[in-house]
Amino acid sequence: MKFSFKNDYSEGCHPNILQALLQYNLDQQAGYGEDEYSLKAKTLIKEKINNPHSEVFLVSGGTQANLIVISAILKPYQCVISAAPGHILNNETGAIEATGHKILSIETEDGKIKPSDIIPILEGHRNVPHQVMPKLVYISNSTELGTIYQAKELEELSAFCKENKLYLFMDGARLGHGLTAEISDLTLEKVAALTDIFYLGGTKNGALIGEAIIINNPVLQEDFAFNIKQKGALLAKGRLLGIQFMELMKDDLYFDLARHANQQAMKIKNALQNKGIAFLSDTYTNQIFPILNNHLIEVLSENFEFYVWKKVDENLSAIRLITSWSTGDEAVNQFIEIIEREL
Amino acid sequence: MKFSFKNDYSEGCHPNILQALLQYNLDQQAGYGEDEYSLKAKTLIKEKINNPHSEVFLVSGGTQANLIVISAILKPYQCVISAAPGHILNNETGAIEATGHKILSIETEDGKIKPSDIIPILEGHRNVPHQVMPKLVYISNSTELGTIYQAKELEELSAFCKENKLYLFMDGARLGHGLTAEISDLTLEKVAALTDIFYLGGTKNGALIGEAIIINNPVLQEDFAFNIKQKGALLAKGRLLGIQFMELMKDDLYFDLARHANQQAMKIKNALQNKGIAFLSDTYTNQIFPILNNHLIEVLSENFEFYVWKKVDENLSAIRLITSWSTGDEAVNQFIEIIEREL
Amino acid sequence: MKFSFKNDYSEGCHPNILQALLQYNLDQQAGYGEDEYSLKAKTLIKEKINNPHSEVFLVSGGTQANLIVISAILKPYQCVISAAPGHILNNETGAIEATGHKILSIETEDGKIKPSDIIPILEGHRNVPHQVMPKLVYISNSTELGTIYQAKELEELSAFCKENKLYLFMDGARLGHGLTAEISDLTLEKVAALTDIFYLGGTKNGALIGEAIIINNPVLQEDFAFNIKQKGALLAKGRLLGIQFMELMKDDLYFDLARHANQQAMKIKNALQNKGIAFLSDTYTNQIFPILNNHLIEVLSENFEFYVWKKVDENLSAIRLITSWSTGDEAVNQFIEIIEREL
Amino acid sequence: MKFSFKNDYSEGCHPNILQALLQYNLDQQAGYGEDEYSLKAKTLIKEKINNPHSEVFLVSGGTQANLIVISAILKPYQCVISAAPGHILNNETGAIEATGHKILSIETEDGKIKPSDIIPILEGHRNVPHQVMPKLVYISNSTELGTIYQAKELEELSAFCKENKLYLFMDGARLGHGLTAEISDLTLEKVAALTDIFYLGGTKNGALIGEAIIINNPVLQEDFAFNIKQKGALLAKGRLLGIQFMELMKDDLYFDLARHANQQAMKIKNALQNKGIAFLSDTYTNQIFPILNNHLIEVLSENFEFYVWKKVDENLSAIRLITSWSTGDEAVNQFIEIIEREL
Repeated sequence: MKFSFKNDYSEGCHPNILQALLQYNLDQQAGYGEDEYSLKAKTLIKEKINNPHSEVFLVSGGTQANLIVISAILKPYQCVISAAPGHILNNETGAIEATGHKILSIETEDGKIKPSDIIPILEGHRNVPHQVMPKLVYISNSTELGTIYQAKELEELSAFCKENKLYLFMDGARLGHGLTAEISDLTLEKVAALTDIFYLGGTKNGALIGEAIIINNPVLQEDFAFNIKQKGALLAKGRLLGIQFMELMKDDLYFDLARHANQQAMKIKNALQNKGIAFLSDTYTNQIFPILNNHLIEVLSENFEFYVWKKVDENLSAIRLITSWSTGDEAVNQFIEIIEREL
Repeated sequence: MKFSFKNDYSEGCHPNILQALLQYNLDQQAGYGEDEYSLKAKTLIKEKINNPHSEVFLVSGGTQANLIVISAILKPYQCVISAAPGHILNNETGAIEATGHKILSIETEDGKIKPSDIIPILEGHRNVPHQVMPKLVYISNSTELGTIYQAKELEELSAFCKENKLYLFMDGARLGHGLTAEISDLTLEKVAALTDIFYLGGTKNGALIGEAIIINNPVLQEDFAFNIKQKGALLAKGRLLGIQFMELMKDDLYFDLARHANQQAMKIKNALQNKGIAFLSDTYTNQIFPILNNHLIEVLSENFEFYVWKKVDENLSAIRLITSWSTGDEAVNQFIEIIEREL
Repeated sequence: MKFSFKNDYSEGCHPNILQALLQYNLDQQAGYGEDEYSLKAKTLIKEKINNPHSEVFLVSGGTQANLIVISAILKPYQCVISAAPGHILNNETGAIEATGHKILSIETEDGKIKPSDIIPILEGHRNVPHQVMPKLVYISNSTELGTIYQAKELEELSAFCKENKLYLFMDGARLGHGLTAEISDLTLEKVAALTDIFYLGGTKNGALIGEAIIINNPVLQEDFAFNIKQKGALLAKGRLLGIQFMELMKDDLYFDLARHANQQAMKIKNALQNKGIAFLSDTYTNQIFPILNNHLIEVLSENFEFYVWKKVDENLSAIRLITSWSTGDEAVNQFIEIIEREL
Repeated sequence: MKFSFKNDYSEGCHPNILQALLQYNLDQQAGYGEDEYSLKAKTLIKEKINNPHSEVFLVSGGTQANLIVISAILKPYQCVISAAPGHILNNETGAIEATGHKILSIETEDGKIKPSDIIPILEGHRNVPHQVMPKLVYISNSTELGTIYQAKELEELSAFCKENKLYLFMDGARLGHGLTAEISDLTLEKVAALTDIFYLGGTKNGALIGEAIIINNPVLQEDFAFNIKQKGALLAKGRLLGIQFMELMKDDLYFDLARHANQQAMKIKNALQNKGIAFLSDTYTNQIFPILNNHLIEVLSENFEFYVWKKVDENLSAIRLITSWSTGDEAVNQFIEIIEREL
């Protein structure tokens, strides 16, 4: 079997989680998220974001979190604004539209949204009532291109949204990676203070399943649980989610795992940069997009699995490499060796 | 802590499952249900139903399975027929209607549907195009009242549905319990032969999460996976579902667990019957509804948790007791002892 | 051609409307309901309900009004309460469920809802978040059975809804007939004061198309126009609706037409009562449901069209007779003559 | 009052229609489109398209037609392809997404779609089941930019759609104008032969309301009426739609009205071209987009109403002028006089 850099969900989960599942397995608990572990996990999260008034809900996956949040928040005629590479636009089989809401797309180079990107959309949607009403700004951090929001960027975006009565929603499927990037000056506490709602992704950072939706805006908290149940996302054995987030939140395991994934990617990035390789985007998280020649790509694929992301010209293509909480040194070193041998 | 007879999802999962999760934890696998364990689980299921042409999809929970199946199958103007106690009618926060489909309710004493129950509905819905078109019959086995379908009943219902171009869909959240009831003459193979689509519930029978949707009618198989993704039900780490069903299907563990749950309930049932206690419905599965006097209910609740289901008169109420794959002899014996002491 | 008592929409419209359509035909007007006639019609309606703060929106038909109002008001997990004969439950092809909302049905003899009917529904829906949340009470006046709400009944229902944070919505497809029934002590002004939202039906009272939705609760007024456009109900030539309601509201034409329809029905009712004929329900509006023997029904159907509504026994059935703003004396007298001759 | 060139729905309807409404006003007719006039109108349409197997349904407006057709045809995971200026994308308040379906946008200069525009969309949507499935191509003729499809263009697009199992749906809100453009070589019969489904717009061509949906693909005909009722589009007095289309279809009135509108626009176009004025797009229908200097625009707006469509530079903007079936010579000549005087 070739080692895979295709994604960050190829392995199971962090051993602490399995250990806890074993330990608590036969304890009887209340169903539907009222178990002790879920309550403990929520408490830990609220401590880390330093906001006791936020509410936390645990669901299984990213598409599920996105569709529940968006359909819960918006009125039928309101719509979402997303960067063009946004996961909800491209890789969720129209899950958002299936709940009745249009997504307006913003072309961006780095997968991020600035206030100046939103202004023309607002100006172009004033023909009341003939057009949808833009109401929610959806961003990802880290983004689908591996880039991140810095504190100042998020502050500006948040202020702009408040002024324009737009909700700000952060898809945090890879929030751990975003926040632990070596250049990041953003913190979890700040994310909670600057967004109306966001989620903390477990699936791509050491859990088997699980995303923690955190609602900071009190207006959006009301009756939220109904939406989770109605969309089929309320697990009878909520303990499965509770135990995972309880473990991930203990002693910052969540951030340690993300930092590890980032570091493994950075090792490869540095090795490639030392050889003068260019990248599709300048990333500091667990996704890198080096532009390699066809021959090298072929050699690498004899030993590793990864996606060829985008053809650049006849000789060059960008590949996507993703590392995870469990990517070991061996695979990374072997990859680097081939690079150094071939270049 | 008092022992709980409130439901069959109070504990974690069967130890074999945890063992397998540990064993395969660091193996890299393809995402989204293309992992080896999911493929193996599907193969085992198709062997057990003896139909290689059926298709199997693994999802997380019952409400999720119900809403995906129904919204995938029906055209916008078509509706569902359900017995009045049907889970989709009462305990899913309008999940089916949220996908656009009405549910027509049939009053029944035992939670089961007969062809003669459906005829008046068909006759009452012929004012085309001013009324919804009944198109799918939803049944549960075992039902929400703990009762079961026998082979002859399901054969008649299946034939009626075919004649009337109705789809027959069985909610099998407790199918294991239904099929292993001591009086049941129905088999999994027969269920597959007689329904267009059904699911095999894991959550209430020893899994952490998981229901296996099995599509027997080829017309309903086309493009089904899109619906799973669109509703947020396609787990990135599909291995979590795959490993569970792989283990449950090995050596009939699934049925052994259900049979155990039934037997523990029957022990209590027999003890109560020996004392002349009546029941709300005559069940042979893991749900029993004995009618007890208020004093006895009080005494029992000092030691056990359970739901008081329905007030019968000033002195009597039916309680609901549910046993599970993990209900041990100790709790059952202690419960029986109190009964025998008090009556 | 036999004269038809089948419904109140068999003819075109009141001549005043056609006259106005001719008169204003070539005047250029703004589109989408911003024309002078629509503005005038809305002003007249607000005067008649004596509430300048209500907002008025004109749409084409009853099903359209119902689905727009309900989907605009409710959050995804909220549902409707309706009497069992409610039009939205039986004759709108699941239009409400198609917008995602469940309708809970109340069995009633007279098609009307009392607070005591709603209490058990509220009590039966407290298993948060596993059940839909009842939020809107839908009533019709006159009802689908021809009965009406008196002032006291509506006051009590309105107070109950306020206490329980339920919206009260009146389907007024036949509101003219309800308010002009000889025994009615309810007024249009009172209806507006006691409901959150209601509509004034034109289609069944002299218009070609048209229902005027009137929103009294300011919370429900916000952005309402978006919903009308999104559901395809905003006519480019809104003048068609505006001119009709402008004419109907002038000099109380609307109420004169409804009163005429009621009176024609009452003439027949009286003739039948004089012969000792019983009725399915005691109505004072333009719908009557006399119980006749099969022979008489046969004789009458040689001369008139009407629906046989409900078989009572082997010899007797109730028929439904509906009169309209344009039902002339000749048809009524001829019908009465046959009755008097045959009985 | 200034004469308005803002749109083609500023006036009422063609006098023949009012005459017929008057003539048949008191005839009793069956409701819900079963009236004689609707049946006659449908017969006339089927004769004109020379296809007795097509089915015709009459609804009120364009957004309504679009949302009914698209939601009736597509499965939940299927989506629409539209040119970027498509009405469904920009001016229908998200009506299509509100029924659950995504719209993929194609950038085009002339508002038209070619097979080569669709290929990259198909290629970009093969990540099954993570992306929506493109299934329906939506085109307008004439387009939102006033341009038209020629026979060869539609033949190629139709063939491409068949090969790729895509439905072809033509929004014909201005189909009369498209087909009667002086350069058009397309016929109504050909449109019916080349599309799966299309509609013939009445609202913008002399009717008060009304679009005739024509379904040529038998697969799409099944049970279509249910969708019309469910979306609130089935008028009780279907006669209103029937009479209008009956009159418009008599003696080709429909095409005469459209041709007149086109000719009035062409007179202005020619006058402007004689003065060397450029246009935003090269149109032969009732919409023209001349690029004028700010001074001239100001002078013209003292006498006429029209939209300033797009700023071209500091001195120049394109305006949009729309003529209708009722635009008289006086307004056109006066407009031309100002042009000739000022330039």
